[in-house]
Amino acid sequence: MIGVDAARLLGRIRELGSVGRDGEGRLIRLAASDTDRQGRDLFVGWLRQAGLDVAIDRVGNIFGIWQSPDNAGQAPLLIGSHIDTVIDAGIYDGCYGVLAGLEVIETLKASSFSPSRPVAVAAFTNEEGVRYTPDMMGSLVHAGGASADAMLAAVGTDGSVLGQELARIGYAGDREPGFLKPRAYLELHIEQGPVLEREGVPIGAVENLQGISWQRITIDGAANHAGTTPMSMRSDAGHAAARVITFLHDRATDSNGPTVATVGTMRFEPNAINVIPSRAIFTVDLRDPNEQSLQAHEAALAAYLEDLAVSENVSISVERLARFEPVLFDIGIVERIEAAAKNRGLAVRRMTSGAGHDAQMMARIAPAAMIFVPSAGGISHSPREHTEDAELVAGANILLDVATQLAK
Amino acid sequence: MIGVDAARLLGRIRELGSVGRDGEGRLIRLAASDTDRQGRDLFVGWLRQAGLDVAIDRVGNIFGIWQSPDNAGQAPLLIGSHIDTVIDAGIYDGCYGVLAGLEVIETLKASSFSPSRPVAVAAFTNEEGVRYTPDMMGSLVHAGGASADAMLAAVGTDGSVLGQELARIGYAGDREPGFLKPRAYLELHIEQGPVLEREGVPIGAVENLQGISWQRITIDGAANHAGTTPMSMRSDAGHAAARVITFLHDRATDSNGPTVATVGTMRFEPNAINVIPSRAIFTVDLRDPNEQSLQAHEAALAAYLEDLAVSENVSISVERLARFEPVLFDIGIVERIEAAAKNRGLAVRRMTSGAGHDAQMMARIAPAAMIFVPSAGGISHSPREHTEDAELVAGANILLDVATQLAK
Repeated sequence: MIGVDAARLLGRIRELGSVGRDGEGRLIRLAASDTDRQGRDLFVGWLRQAGLDVAIDRVGNIFGIWQSPDNAGQAPLLIGSHIDTVIDAGIYDGCYGVLAGLEVIETLKASSFSPSRPVAVAAFTNEEGVRYTPDMMGSLVHAGGASADAMLAAVGTDGSVLGQELARIGYAGDREPGFLKPRAYLELHIEQGPVLEREGVPIGAVENLQGISWQRITIDGAANHAGTTPMSMRSDAGHAAARVITFLHDRATDSNGPTVATVGTMRFEPNAINVIPSRAIFTVDLRDPNEQSLQAHEAALAAYLEDLAVSENVSISVERLARFEPVLFDIGIVERIEAAAKNRGLAVRRMTSGAGHDAQMMARIAPAAMIFVPSAGGISHSPREHTEDAELVAGANILLDVATQLAK
Repeated sequence: MIGVDAARLLGRIRELGSVGRDGEGRLIRLAASDTDRQGRDLFVGWLRQAGLDVAIDRVGNIFGIWQSPDNAGQAPLLIGSHIDTVIDAGIYDGCYGVLAGLEVIETLKASSFSPSRPVAVAAFTNEEGVRYTPDMMGSLVHAGGASADAMLAAVGTDGSVLGQELARIGYAGDREPGFLKPRAYLELHIEQGPVLEREGVPIGAVENLQGISWQRITIDGAANHAGTTPMSMRSDAGHAAARVITFLHDRATDSNGPTVATVGTMRFEPNAINVIPSRAIFTVDLRDPNEQSLQAHEAALAAYLEDLAVSENVSISVERLARFEPVLFDIGIVERIEAAAKNRGLAVRRMTSGAGHDAQMMARIAPAAMIFVPSAGGISHSPREHTEDAELVAGANILLDVATQLAK
């Protein structure tokens, strides 16, 4: 059984992670920025060193393609992720998957393996969505979900225009987005959650990605004196909001499944110690990998709010902020990931991705799946993001095994 | 049966309510301010017109005393409240009780009634506590609960010193606070709550005043990704806070009594839609007219928080912000208020004061009780504060009847 070059992979993760540090040592490579250019240049240099054909499309997605005259007509196997980062990022999110993809190709090239189809690695533009909206932009455009021209006109948080910035840093490519039609898509990523670490399982075979429902709820009651207003005569918006939080928490917990519900923001008005809140404004983040189940949770919440408005004598308005359907990954690839892990003696579990990834866009146009490795403490988007070297190498070897099968 | 001069009483309430309006028409007579001086001057003028002896003590409390050579040696009946206001106040809070006290004295003087003891009306300094802390300051000093010198050194929200401001506006009197030792104390006040209006009862016989427990609670959990962190692996500070709100609400409601519990302020950190709250900071306002009951609620909350820290995997710290024991008013006076109302054919109910009043300080040194009249919508500390003229007059007549009995 062949394996990846652990030292080369880990060395590149660290080298890329050293690019884009600010004066305080924070890692910041926002999409199409000067530091993103430095990261892209380093990556493209490695692609060329590896003898791959480098292609860049109009939205800046970078592809390194290993093909031969024999297989150039076949749809390629694509391995991808992203190398843009959030502000004060860790070094693994995205970069691990991209560099492992390159590592797999180099390992296969150095072996006697002769693929029946091209194998390519992709770094998609603006996955994080920190500078430009929406996130997962490059893979969205590649999958035909948004027009390149519309995305290139995106105005960033700093007032910049993406198309101009890509041209400025030299990554406004000439290929039309979507030019590469993959036969299958693989993405290796850190979990960004606590499950694998807590369960002591090194490999996650990601079978689906949660649908997301974001809502903002405003509850209006009446501001009255906290001392002189009997409990039975109150319209307490804060109390009604608390009921919603416990309702959602209990429902998600009782589902005993991958459903998660979070109230992450909350504001009371007038927010005075001795005044009953006249208004509570909060957000609901509901996620479920099953669309029917997600709809059922949304409907249950709506029904609960209707009853609550009556029982608590408040008025409630709901604003939909975002809604994404769940993504089902390809069961055949998921089973290959499981089999590959078992074959290497690694524990594996099927799991749901709670975060968004480029793979969810690519799943629109090709059989796709993801491999997860543990995140220490479930932490991500933080310099404390960490995965053990051995776990990183193990994940890359599973990617190697599955890629070998899919490219055979 | 004699009655007060309704037109005189209502006219004075409106005239005093016109003093201290700012450019936007807002009523603002903060303690010891220029507008407070204008209000005091008007009130003292009315005291002199009525032929009363005017006395002012060192903390600015104003007394109008009706006494004769025959009864000057007796402890007086004192009727009081305050004429300072909050910012953008209504015209009834405090002023109604002071002007009704004066009205009662003038009515008795004009009748053939010959009291066996002096009858006095008081306007206590800085009841609202908006400019200087603590509130109910003048009556607190009068009752011996704080030293005059300490209070005169109080620094206001505007940096002013109370003693200097009283001297500046001409109300740093020469009498030693507490010089007047009442035989009994009466205070007539708008309810500032919704109970009388909702029940259609014009007179409240206030038998006690709630004890108050203010606490600030900080819950620390762990900020994790709202999508990737299973419900069972969360330390959700926001959810734990919601549990506390519902616990307090249910406990207060289930008491079926005058207990009230309010969470008026709330802050989540980091307060992001897709991040589980790492911290929730909120305040608890617990009130109960029975000290044992208030202590039991506090103990139940403490025990609940201890269990919650374990079940929700959070750490919880509690800071005590304020604590006042309940005040019991004099049952004999409360019964006289009930009897007087019935005698005039007015519905009456015993009730608890949820707000603080000068009467709670005076109850330390004399038998005391309060009479409430309805507040439209329970609203106070607002220009929308309103009580019907007929209700104001009815309350003043009950005050007249009880004062007549107590001064006989």
